Amino acid sequence: MSAHPRIGIVGAGGRMGRMLIQAVHQAGYPLAAAVVRSGSSLIGTDAGELVGIGRLGLTVVDDLTKVIANCDVIIDFSTPEATAQYLNICQAANVAIVIGTTGFSEPQKQQMQQTAQHIPVVYAANYSVGVNVSIKLLQLAAQAFGDSVDVEIVEAHHRHKVDAPSGTALMMGEAVAERLGRDLKEVAVYGREGHTGPRDRQTIGFETIRGGDIVGEHTVMFIGDGERVEISHKASNRMNFAAGAVRAAAWVVGKPAQQYDMQDVLGLEQL
Amino acid sequence: MSAHPRIGIVGAGGRMGRMLIQAVHQAGYPLAAAVVRSGSSLIGTDAGELVGIGRLGLTVVDDLTKVIANCDVIIDFSTPEATAQYLNICQAANVAIVIGTTGFSEPQKQQMQQTAQHIPVVYAANYSVGVNVSIKLLQLAAQAFGDSVDVEIVEAHHRHKVDAPSGTALMMGEAVAERLGRDLKEVAVYGREGHTGPRDRQTIGFETIRGGDIVGEHTVMFIGDGERVEISHKASNRMNFAAGAVRAAAWVVGKPAQQYDMQDVLGLEQL
Amino acid sequence: MSAHPRIGIVGAGGRMGRMLIQAVHQAGYPLAAAVVRSGSSLIGTDAGELVGIGRLGLTVVDDLTKVIANCDVIIDFSTPEATAQYLNICQAANVAIVIGTTGFSEPQKQQMQQTAQHIPVVYAANYSVGVNVSIKLLQLAAQAFGDSVDVEIVEAHHRHKVDAPSGTALMMGEAVAERLGRDLKEVAVYGREGHTGPRDRQTIGFETIRGGDIVGEHTVMFIGDGERVEISHKASNRMNFAAGAVRAAAWVVGKPAQQYDMQDVLGLEQL
Amino acid sequence: MSAHPRIGIVGAGGRMGRMLIQAVHQAGYPLAAAVVRSGSSLIGTDAGELVGIGRLGLTVVDDLTKVIANCDVIIDFSTPEATAQYLNICQAANVAIVIGTTGFSEPQKQQMQQTAQHIPVVYAANYSVGVNVSIKLLQLAAQAFGDSVDVEIVEAHHRHKVDAPSGTALMMGEAVAERLGRDLKEVAVYGREGHTGPRDRQTIGFETIRGGDIVGEHTVMFIGDGERVEISHKASNRMNFAAGAVRAAAWVVGKPAQQYDMQDVLGLEQL
Repeated sequence: MSAHPRIGIVGAGGRMGRMLIQAVHQAGYPLAAAVVRSGSSLIGTDAGELVGIGRLGLTVVDDLTKVIANCDVIIDFSTPEATAQYLNICQAANVAIVIGTTGFSEPQKQQMQQTAQHIPVVYAANYSVGVNVSIKLLQLAAQAFGDSVDVEIVEAHHRHKVDAPSGTALMMGEAVAERLGRDLKEVAVYGREGHTGPRDRQTIGFETIRGGDIVGEHTVMFIGDGERVEISHKASNRMNFAAGAVRAAAWVVGKPAQQYDMQDVLGLEQL
Repeated sequence: MSAHPRIGIVGAGGRMGRMLIQAVHQAGYPLAAAVVRSGSSLIGTDAGELVGIGRLGLTVVDDLTKVIANCDVIIDFSTPEATAQYLNICQAANVAIVIGTTGFSEPQKQQMQQTAQHIPVVYAANYSVGVNVSIKLLQLAAQAFGDSVDVEIVEAHHRHKVDAPSGTALMMGEAVAERLGRDLKEVAVYGREGHTGPRDRQTIGFETIRGGDIVGEHTVMFIGDGERVEISHKASNRMNFAAGAVRAAAWVVGKPAQQYDMQDVLGLEQL
Repeated sequence: MSAHPRIGIVGAGGRMGRMLIQAVHQAGYPLAAAVVRSGSSLIGTDAGELVGIGRLGLTVVDDLTKVIANCDVIIDFSTPEATAQYLNICQAANVAIVIGTTGFSEPQKQQMQQTAQHIPVVYAANYSVGVNVSIKLLQLAAQAFGDSVDVEIVEAHHRHKVDAPSGTALMMGEAVAERLGRDLKEVAVYGREGHTGPRDRQTIGFETIRGGDIVGEHTVMFIGDGERVEISHKASNRMNFAAGAVRAAAWVVGKPAQQYDMQDVLGLEQL
Repeated sequence: MSAHPRIGIVGAGGRMGRMLIQAVHQAGYPLAAAVVRSGSSLIGTDAGELVGIGRLGLTVVDDLTKVIANCDVIIDFSTPEATAQYLNICQAANVAIVIGTTGFSEPQKQQMQQTAQHIPVVYAANYSVGVNVSIKLLQLAAQAFGDSVDVEIVEAHHRHKVDAPSGTALMMGEAVAERLGRDLKEVAVYGREGHTGPRDRQTIGFETIRGGDIVGEHTVMFIGDGERVEISHKASNRMNFAAGAVRAAAWVVGKPAQQYDMQDVLGLEQL
């Protein structure tokens, strides 16, 4: 892990790009580059003023190749097409890359793996440190409680979310079900109405709350007689994803060429 | 409201009866009678020892008529049939009665109303002070927020409960819907799964948790952008129902013959 | 309340200014002006691109007088000195103003009151709709429960906050204490350690959590035997203050010249 | 672990004794003995009727020696003096014992260890399965997060509790501090009032809520930027202690003579 990683941000004008600039600043690292799309009215502004944290003395540009020499690692939350280009640029410059883009096709994933033979690449479905730690805690709790409790998973997201339950809630449910030797597809309950009868202990209940602009909250309850244990993850803004990506960027600088995920970055396997 | 009401408990061997003895004791009132069913092995025990709060010097009996002269008011959480008899005994002795029994038929309700022309009677669906206050708070909140928020109602009960959502959750939903000018039957959502699309603000969501021996928890969320207000009622044991019934008993002693409910006891209409 | 208020934002480059631009956009109102300080690198950018919500077609400027003719009302969360100038500009242009600036001196407050004889002015300590409604709910709950419960106030804020408890927590405590006939200064408890003895019901406990970047959470508990009622306000970002200010702006357009607060805007007195 | 352990309860007239009878019944095991103090008015009652779960056909007695032959294991939550006698009786009858008594002197603890050379003995400070699992989860979380988060511990107990924070809260704080390499005595903060300055990350905050008859709730928060993870244990009645003790009783029957604790019973070391 580098003490002073020089981090560049692409997609700096987007919502995650702005978060990443702030996260680099908060982590105390120098911001090495901030790149926006061609033709943006933001070109030439100061990257710090752009995100409202005061002048950083770094000018926003629209071409990564001009500034990559200043960087040890690039963080990229963009589109599969843009990421394909950034992978080439990073490989040519021998610079590491942390990828938060989603929606890759199989050929695009293969390109990523080939690039990872030449430069270090971090790629994770979820960069939140808290979510990754929570999954680990849930596995331990499920193993300790076994069939002595009822398991319920409550999640809340903003009113614009179109699917239910959230991918993270399902991931949590699968982590618990796997340790309990159950098949989530068979035991999941997504709503209760009318005469339901008494609860079957084998089931895992999901309760989905939708409202306002809630970023994302998940609580898994292990409910016994006279007591319950709850493990909650509450995201209040996307800063936790940005902070996790910056942590990954600092960690990956100087590592051997290879593809890594957040389990590697956080060393959770060893715990 | 009497400062030293002499309170008698019928059904003293049952779960609510035991709670009521404790609630009378905690409120600092003298326990005037404790009556169990004929043939119980508990006859002759000390009422305080029976419920584990130490000797009270009052012996458990099995016939209300023998001890009613010691009472200003009776609290009765039993069966419709037993309550019919207690109403007659109380009327004959000119003693007030607080009724927590459920499941009355129409003729039984009419008998209660006729008795209430001769003695004061309190009869409520829910004796919890907290639930009654919460309903009032929900009405105010719904009126203040109007259509500017999303409303979600989360409730949790023990694994043996066979219906969903709880009657209290539905009562809360109706209180909110009525103030928002909505018909709960049309706008209630009882579960979310798969592709749900974005949330419709007119809906009111119910999320039902079942597990362990949870006595009863209800949270109503008013969710806006960047903030939410939550009103929660959490019952940890049946003591709150017992305490509310004792409060009703102390209140009703000396009142004119009439049928009252908890709104009267708590004076919530005036707030 | 105007259906299409033309709202101008001053201090548009600051954190609250950016929030206000987004809040105007989300409310579906046209943004009429976005003003930043002289010399900012942000002058000439598109106001929508500046805050990351896509091009709005409105260019950021540095002089309110040039654009005030396009506005029905100005929202100002800045400094007392800047607000003094904006009050003059608004009065000269006969435009309403919503003020979220804090830290006024007495002479500055008097200037505000004098200006309010000529144009409508909204000035509130806290623009959150949720906080203002919560205060109202707390008053009602305190009145209903009286001395039958223990009152505890838990609040959480970010790690940079230098005072405890928060001003809002104290405001809530005072609202409750006033209805209970207690003097908050005499009954407040700010921490518990070692041998404390049993709780005195007259006390009101404050528990202060500090950590991370928590925007602000407040929960007031009314704790009885076997049950409790909790009223919580959770702010997840400053959007709720911005949304409240925009609501005030839309409300105040067309109102008589006078100074108003959020109680007026929300009509809470009548509830 | 015995499939049909014959469990005897001493101190059956006390609050924990009654809970233990119910817990044995709920676990589906036969109740083998129920012993109360000499001279109690409860002698001769049916053990099931005594605790309100219906007739069990087992009569309450006042002398353990008369019924110990029916038992594989005794559960004892009483006083150090009474426990000393029960240890002798169990050793003489070669029956295992689960001890929940608190407040032993050093000589009394030595007697227990000597007895454990002849019969299996379980002795734990806290029989709650949930608390024991929570401690394990907290250790893992502290190790995973390290110094990247702020740690706060909120606990709530009933109004009669005379010390703060609770022993369990301190035990949780020590488990976290030990993994973070901190000395809890140096870093604990027990209240915040007035000008506190920004939070020091090395500190661990305790917030103590007191009210009503809350049995015991503990929440440990790991608060980062934009997210937090919370691990909560909520006890709603003493049933969880009783259920843990019954689990220990079933586990210890047939084990070699030795002193065990709940870590052994739950097998948490291996996780």
